[in-house]
Amino acid sequence: MLRTHDLGSLSAELIGQTVTLTGWVARRRDHGGVAFLDLRDASGVAQIVVRDEQDFHALRNEFVLQITGTVERRPEGNDNAALATGEIEVVAETVTVLNESAPLPFQLDDHGDVGEEARLKHRYLDLRRSTMAKNLKLRSEANRVARELLHADGFVEIETPTMTLSTPGGARDFVVPARLAPGNWYGLAQSPQLFKQLLQVGGFEKYYQIARCYRDEDFRADRQPEFTQLDIEASFVDEDDIIALGEKIVSALWRLIDVEVPTPIQRMPYWEAMGRYGSDKPDLRFGLELTDLTEFFKDTTFRVFQAPYVGAVVMPGGAAQARRTLDGWQEWAKQRGAKGLAYVLVQEDGELTGPVAKNLSEAEKAGLAEAVGAKPGDCVFFGAGERDAAWSILGATRVEIGHRTGLIDPNAFAFVWVVDFPMFESAAAATASGDVAVGAGEWTALHHAFTAPKPEFLDSFDQDPAAALAFAYDLVCNGNEIGGGSIRIHRRDVQERVFALMGLDEAAQQETFGFLLEGFKYGAPPHGGIAFGWDRAVALLAGVESIRDVIAFPKSGGGFDPLTGAPAPITAQQRKEAGVDAVKKPAVEAPAAQA
Amino acid sequence: MLRTHDLGSLSAELIGQTVTLTGWVARRRDHGGVAFLDLRDASGVAQIVVRDEQDFHALRNEFVLQITGTVERRPEGNDNAALATGEIEVVAETVTVLNESAPLPFQLDDHGDVGEEARLKHRYLDLRRSTMAKNLKLRSEANRVARELLHADGFVEIETPTMTLSTPGGARDFVVPARLAPGNWYGLAQSPQLFKQLLQVGGFEKYYQIARCYRDEDFRADRQPEFTQLDIEASFVDEDDIIALGEKIVSALWRLIDVEVPTPIQRMPYWEAMGRYGSDKPDLRFGLELTDLTEFFKDTTFRVFQAPYVGAVVMPGGAAQARRTLDGWQEWAKQRGAKGLAYVLVQEDGELTGPVAKNLSEAEKAGLAEAVGAKPGDCVFFGAGERDAAWSILGATRVEIGHRTGLIDPNAFAFVWVVDFPMFESAAAATASGDVAVGAGEWTALHHAFTAPKPEFLDSFDQDPAAALAFAYDLVCNGNEIGGGSIRIHRRDVQERVFALMGLDEAAQQETFGFLLEGFKYGAPPHGGIAFGWDRAVALLAGVESIRDVIAFPKSGGGFDPLTGAPAPITAQQRKEAGVDAVKKPAVEAPAAQA
Repeated sequence: MLRTHDLGSLSAELIGQTVTLTGWVARRRDHGGVAFLDLRDASGVAQIVVRDEQDFHALRNEFVLQITGTVERRPEGNDNAALATGEIEVVAETVTVLNESAPLPFQLDDHGDVGEEARLKHRYLDLRRSTMAKNLKLRSEANRVARELLHADGFVEIETPTMTLSTPGGARDFVVPARLAPGNWYGLAQSPQLFKQLLQVGGFEKYYQIARCYRDEDFRADRQPEFTQLDIEASFVDEDDIIALGEKIVSALWRLIDVEVPTPIQRMPYWEAMGRYGSDKPDLRFGLELTDLTEFFKDTTFRVFQAPYVGAVVMPGGAAQARRTLDGWQEWAKQRGAKGLAYVLVQEDGELTGPVAKNLSEAEKAGLAEAVGAKPGDCVFFGAGERDAAWSILGATRVEIGHRTGLIDPNAFAFVWVVDFPMFESAAAATASGDVAVGAGEWTALHHAFTAPKPEFLDSFDQDPAAALAFAYDLVCNGNEIGGGSIRIHRRDVQERVFALMGLDEAAQQETFGFLLEGFKYGAPPHGGIAFGWDRAVALLAGVESIRDVIAFPKSGGGFDPLTGAPAPITAQQRKEAGVDAVKKPAVEAPAAQA
Repeated sequence: MLRTHDLGSLSAELIGQTVTLTGWVARRRDHGGVAFLDLRDASGVAQIVVRDEQDFHALRNEFVLQITGTVERRPEGNDNAALATGEIEVVAETVTVLNESAPLPFQLDDHGDVGEEARLKHRYLDLRRSTMAKNLKLRSEANRVARELLHADGFVEIETPTMTLSTPGGARDFVVPARLAPGNWYGLAQSPQLFKQLLQVGGFEKYYQIARCYRDEDFRADRQPEFTQLDIEASFVDEDDIIALGEKIVSALWRLIDVEVPTPIQRMPYWEAMGRYGSDKPDLRFGLELTDLTEFFKDTTFRVFQAPYVGAVVMPGGAAQARRTLDGWQEWAKQRGAKGLAYVLVQEDGELTGPVAKNLSEAEKAGLAEAVGAKPGDCVFFGAGERDAAWSILGATRVEIGHRTGLIDPNAFAFVWVVDFPMFESAAAATASGDVAVGAGEWTALHHAFTAPKPEFLDSFDQDPAAALAFAYDLVCNGNEIGGGSIRIHRRDVQERVFALMGLDEAAQQETFGFLLEGFKYGAPPHGGIAFGWDRAVALLAGVESIRDVIAFPKSGGGFDPLTGAPAPITAQQRKEAGVDAVKKPAVEAPAAQA
């Protein structure tokens, strides 16, 4: 080692000892004749006293130094209580510059407001900032506690392939040309799903893996082309077992930030979550439930409310909003695909005002405030139309109200299991939400095609897909899905019926999922599992908005990496060698002949 | 849970209790009126007594059952000491078939000699065999002990990207078309090398990761397109620190199989290993060192030995080999690229025979046996020609002799650090061994371009590349490289000189490694690391020949997966969407605009 001590380990106990230290110059102050350095390493910061002017003047911020010197008590009154090493200082005898630093593109103290593009381009500098260092160390600890817990529970860590058969569905696969079998491609696995199920068929009753996954999405919002999940699967389990395991993991994670998660975590059926919160990812840090007004407005003469569904959410104190703010809500709603956001204001005297109010009957006006639980001074926002679309905009409005009114405690964590998901959604709805529907059927799986029906729907799910509920469960924290899973189908005949309903004929089933169906022939055990979106879970734990703040080297928008410049053109030789343009498509068995 | 107890947990303490069990039918025996099942789960096997004929007759091997019954002591004399649960049996009250099984394509007991293609095609069945189950559990344990050790040592686990800039060199990159930036491609990272170095620049002084890596090689021998390494990097370290850490890891791993690795592990300079064993991966489970006979034959009239290098290795007892066997050696050598394998046999009376002997002078014949240390009855194999080629064939011959003569103890483990590697090899040599040389220079890096020179070669390495030694070290076990690393270059000017020597001009350096050089401008600390080839390390630990036996779902030859059929053609729509055929190549910055 080039040092005898970590900076963070220096203390009064070492006074009088000679130490050798290494680190970066975090700050330098010349007091004329004697100069002070704050030297930083991964463990902490210590003050170095440099008496030799010549040594000192060559130094700049972020120079890498090796310093040999003596630990001394700081002069009376110079202690720095803000620093773990604040009682002592090291008086340098020799100062060796291990490497120099050019002036930085941005400052490393955490007050500077640096653009994300610059941070990512010089990520190695951004990582020296204390926030990013803390976030990545927390992520490492999250890995550790999850693994220790799973190990203690008898789980076996198994790696599964990422280069596999392309099975698009739900999202697009990234594809990789196979040089040794020109014209053929690997798909990068979107998750270990099929392999972890086959591991259950293979008798590994308790599997886990912190797995890299790949999804070629449009990188809207907060997505990365590669992401990480804590992936778990077990045999002979029921929903309660997986939920209990999930709660143990979450409890262990949150203990890392000294938060005790109350267990059992409440469970809420999907339809209840949608009805009460307009979302299958309800943020339960605050109330403000939706009110279903369909019945209330069933005889209304107001055309907008003559709809399959009318609902409302109340904004406490919202009647005081300026006209401009209320207009802003309309814009906000339009950006989310709604036509607008109808509202009435409940004045202090109980009168209802706003453009909608004059369209309501006297009876409607008289009963509305009570029906929705609005008090004088509140604003009532409405959603009317197809139920799913109305829930969607009301759910988003509810969360926006929570933020704007300060009803959401940013330091609180509210967990909920959403359970009893529908097995299927219409393919049209899936496509509308940006997914690639598997198969050509009218229905597609809401979770995925391997989710088992609850027993009461086992016989009927293909006759009445809309009614069928699945053994699926999502773990939601503060409105974010951090985990999701299901009990899986383990019977070949049931799996084939699901595929058929989704419009996969026998040939298509064989081509894409033949190996799973084959596996199910040989004693597949009942099994189920869960996967935690690890980037998101750690982001919540770290208290950051973006998953990019818990990833060492993330991509920015569009999948671009400002650090390396990837993706980039490849050479003509690479293209030729990779066989990208091979037209001959060998039969499936051909590559084996090259073994 | 569908069970109350794991099968392996059943013992005499539970006698009289009612238990519910699940598992697979491993064996069934009908004794007329009473039938016995061996039921297997991940924890073990137990004997089930089924009295109900109707229950029993429906059962076949590998059916999945749920059984409720009473634990009873086996009748006097029926204990099975070979079974952990051999004192007891469970008398079934109810037998529920959870899933059926078709007749298996191969039997699961470990005696059957099943072809690997069949094993991989039905891998989920192969994984039920006790050997594969044991291997993968051992691998999970290897992960655990390595991580625990690194964690205790203050290492932080950090994930690095696998989708990054293609930087071919050493081996080919797999490439991935970027749909959102048509005409651009990601490269799948061959290792976290550049990122782990940037993490050091970023102040993470102790990094590790069990990382998936991708290399588009020809899958000769025992390679996989994706493989795993335990990847480690640290700052302010020297070679001794990394070697000491490597020894701690290896010791912890081998303790899993109750083997105490003697430390410190011996170190051997590269040139010594080549000279004595003809290999930089010497198998030290046995002796049989090469003899350099260049001086001995310097005046020979035998044309074959008029060569830059002549060496020999002795096969004890080899004079007794049949002519057919000796001819077989010639074939064996030709398959390894040699012209043949010259030999002389030392007869019991000391006479030298064989086709080479008659070409030797009397003086040569008189002195040979002593020069090579051969005794009557031995065979002396020769390698003559260019030194590197001769070492290569003699080194391979030595190992083959070790196997054929039983000199290699298959249960022994012999570790050695090979150190002081040359920094460079000629580009021609690299190409000949199947690598893709980086740059257009005459010289290429033997380890990789980021390896630091030893201090005495810092000034001279680009004037005299052949002489320069690097701070590089490989950990070798039984002739296999299981880990390799180096102290890295941390100075931008030194890195640029290495790139220049390898024939990368400034533009090429910028295009491929510009971000690393940029990072080195801002206070890069001295650093170094190591990577363990995890598949190979675990294979050695498990005592298996092939890394495929420690990978859950490996590819077979040519990168083909007999299980899923990957790789396979993609659809025209996938191809179009992926932008494979986009001709427009946007400037590097373009994708960011899509953010």
